[in-house]
Amino acid sequence: MGYQAFTVQDAIERVRTLGLIGNEPVTAEEIGDGNLNLVFRIQAGEKRLILKQALPYAKVVGESWPLSLERAWIEQSALKEFAKVAVPFVPHVYHASKEEAFTVMEDLSHLTIVRGGLLEGEKYPLLAEHIGSYLARTLFYTSDFAVGPVAKKQIARQYYNPDLCDITEKLIFTDPFYDAETNAIEAGLEAEVDRIWNDAELKREVAKLEALFITKGDALLHGDLHTGSIFASAEETKVIDPEFAFYGPFGFDVGQFIAHLFFAAYPDYDRLRDERIKDIDTFWLTFASTFKALWEREAVEPFRKADGLVDDVLSTILQDALGFAGCELIRRTIGLALVADLEQISDSTVRLERKRHALRLGAALIKRRTECKTFTDLRNFDVTEELSR
Amino acid sequence: MGYQAFTVQDAIERVRTLGLIGNEPVTAEEIGDGNLNLVFRIQAGEKRLILKQALPYAKVVGESWPLSLERAWIEQSALKEFAKVAVPFVPHVYHASKEEAFTVMEDLSHLTIVRGGLLEGEKYPLLAEHIGSYLARTLFYTSDFAVGPVAKKQIARQYYNPDLCDITEKLIFTDPFYDAETNAIEAGLEAEVDRIWNDAELKREVAKLEALFITKGDALLHGDLHTGSIFASAEETKVIDPEFAFYGPFGFDVGQFIAHLFFAAYPDYDRLRDERIKDIDTFWLTFASTFKALWEREAVEPFRKADGLVDDVLSTILQDALGFAGCELIRRTIGLALVADLEQISDSTVRLERKRHALRLGAALIKRRTECKTFTDLRNFDVTEELSR
Repeated sequence: MGYQAFTVQDAIERVRTLGLIGNEPVTAEEIGDGNLNLVFRIQAGEKRLILKQALPYAKVVGESWPLSLERAWIEQSALKEFAKVAVPFVPHVYHASKEEAFTVMEDLSHLTIVRGGLLEGEKYPLLAEHIGSYLARTLFYTSDFAVGPVAKKQIARQYYNPDLCDITEKLIFTDPFYDAETNAIEAGLEAEVDRIWNDAELKREVAKLEALFITKGDALLHGDLHTGSIFASAEETKVIDPEFAFYGPFGFDVGQFIAHLFFAAYPDYDRLRDERIKDIDTFWLTFASTFKALWEREAVEPFRKADGLVDDVLSTILQDALGFAGCELIRRTIGLALVADLEQISDSTVRLERKRHALRLGAALIKRRTECKTFTDLRNFDVTEELSR
Repeated sequence: MGYQAFTVQDAIERVRTLGLIGNEPVTAEEIGDGNLNLVFRIQAGEKRLILKQALPYAKVVGESWPLSLERAWIEQSALKEFAKVAVPFVPHVYHASKEEAFTVMEDLSHLTIVRGGLLEGEKYPLLAEHIGSYLARTLFYTSDFAVGPVAKKQIARQYYNPDLCDITEKLIFTDPFYDAETNAIEAGLEAEVDRIWNDAELKREVAKLEALFITKGDALLHGDLHTGSIFASAEETKVIDPEFAFYGPFGFDVGQFIAHLFFAAYPDYDRLRDERIKDIDTFWLTFASTFKALWEREAVEPFRKADGLVDDVLSTILQDALGFAGCELIRRTIGLALVADLEQISDSTVRLERKRHALRLGAALIKRRTECKTFTDLRNFDVTEELSR
């Protein structure tokens, strides 16, 4: 059949041919932003489906560059892999076509995208707990601690995802730390950014985190776990879009989620700060306790019986996560992909102040991450000094 | 053609068909130990060649189990990869057949295998320096610090080597630390071995090293770099047999070589100790200075410019290497594959004493490896206390 980008009519025909809908009347529309994927919502009677198809390019801020369609297959495979171990948090996949780079999945329009929802004042009381559980399960069960090493190497080999890893490496670890064309630095933030570019210690620690990102294959990561990749309601949480999935370090997804909880406080910092810090508490406690419980019950030998090993592993995850969170805070404040949490602050003095805060917090997390060995250290992590300098 | 194990006649015909020898009279013999490979030495006039063919099984101490022939291809590819960056230390490959799992390469019989040579009192004054240079070059040039990440992922994917990694994992990190059938514990060593099996801290640290071994893909490793994998003379050094090659942590090859330099002192400890420690000094200094020089000249951005990063990387390599050296010391003293350096000590009291020393030194290196951040720390590393307890 070969690949071609679908029209609305193509999308309808595909789901009909697949028997996912019958001959009843159908409505369908393309609801994607067209930057990376086409997203069709298809409704036939009571049935609602999403058909997502990868485009052979990426468009960001007017620029366009070619991007492998293989990422659709990565996403499909990762959704299935994650559903095996964390089914409540993963959208159901009805059909996946590698050749035509499309996936038919559950429509989640009864939920809202968390970033937008939080900006509108919506509450997700179970979000932190759910993502803690989701990550503990997906990370533990795809790691060498749960899977025999031969089987794990087989899985890891499938998620060789060089295109998207390369994007991450460039946009998170490289470009924000020098005067790259991709950066988007708001006027008034130059002095703050200069501090970053001239901070040799910071840049060395970022390079270490980058090396960790590209060399450590702990577990199958989502790879892009921000609040725009999560649909939720008061009761339900679904993690979508794992097209950046690859075998990477445990701390990466954990850190990205933490960073975006920090971002979610910025629209109304004085009011939201404590709420978001409580979310981070809940998230980490759920993650760590679930990971530990899974380990104690199901880790393979000799890891399970190695006294105290799981606590050391969790310490390392926490430290690495804080470093990755720091990188994410910086790149989402001055890099290519900015966040609405900051950009939608209308008062420019406040907005610049919050951006400055995000950059300082990011740098502190990167440079001082090894101070945090336990949850208590995390709670006591204080950046007053960095902020006042 | 398909695979079948060669006779001497098959081997001669292959090299003749390949045009590597003409129609002159030929002598040939099989000189391998038949445990994993057939090794034919073929001589035609002035020409001497080695034809090595993988067997589809491994035989050790009478036991036999199936083993993938793909390892021949791994070995061929690794020899070529290493020759690109460290040609003086790699045997020349004339021909490689993936299908028939054989390699025709340079005959090295003008050199001696280092383990045997050292046992006979031979001197290899350049060995430590050569291996330092070999490892600095092979590790640096196959790492993300020298190769762009997309290209490196392409290379790494080829060296997916689950069978042999699994053997290493089992024999080095697992079996010696509990009462496994594969162990070979000499009578009289039981109490010492019990100490190891009951040392929870040691076992936790070994599990961490195992996790590092299976999750960290820093560089293309030789994977089995002991003194039996090295041919040398006073002037020349050639590293053979990289069938265990895979993308693993920097410190692994470094640590294995250090462990076998320690072993080389045991046959006559009082006389050889200082000589071997000097070898370790020379080896590490050459390795570190060469690695650093390559880095400063050729590392990719942003790593090259990250202030002080290479020193941190080298510190980590040293610490990890000492941990891996410790594991190797223990497994080669009580595990499946023992070393002649210890086994050939004829006086049983002395032999047991040296084995006890190797086990204590191994445990100390594993548990105290993080004390060694620099070469000076390594020099001052003192195990008197462990030995006297």
